[in-house]
Amino acid sequence: MPVLVAIVTPQPGKMDEAADAFSAIIPDVHGEPGCELYALHRNADKLVMIEKWADAETLAAHGRAPALAKLGAKMGALVAEPMQLLILEPVPVGDPTKGAL
Amino acid sequence: MPVLVAIVTPQPGKMDEAADAFSAIIPDVHGEPGCELYALHRNADKLVMIEKWADAETLAAHGRAPALAKLGAKMGALVAEPMQLLILEPVPVGDPTKGAL
Repeated sequence: MPVLVAIVTPQPGKMDEAADAFSAIIPDVHGEPGCELYALHRNADKLVMIEKWADAETLAAHGRAPALAKLGAKMGALVAEPMQLLILEPVPVGDPTKGAL
Repeated sequence: MPVLVAIVTPQPGKMDEAADAFSAIIPDVHGEPGCELYALHRNADKLVMIEKWADAETLAAHGRAPALAKLGAKMGALVAEPMQLLILEPVPVGDPTKGAL
């Protein structure tokens, strides 16, 4: 059950356009096999996608799917620096309803 | 409903000790008012806490609670660089069960 955190830094003035590019692919990603969570967040200067996939195979398939290629084609011109991608494993502790995604 | 992503980089050889310091406070944090998610993750060199709080007030109270002070007292000697803290707002899109924490 890999969990991913992808941190994108749009160029100044490109935040809304970058958020729209993510938003456009989210329904398709939600329909991909093994997608359990693909949830967009933002603050003043970052977009942060928090993801959970059923297993390494479905995550790998997501990486080859049309939605991500479509996003990449738009995002290249909008970002100020390379995406920070964290591929993580859960460390479940405490209350199961609060200690894991 | 603020969502936080806190990224900690332990010093080489201190990963397990830093993970244990987080794990020790998680049950207490889960019991704090407004804590909806406080979930630890790791990869080879980072610890990543993903959090959701009911509102800004309960998040602020968490910042003053004993659990976080206890963590800070241990963590100072274990980290290689300052914590990266992202305080975020959700951008819910698509399937409500997959598009938001």
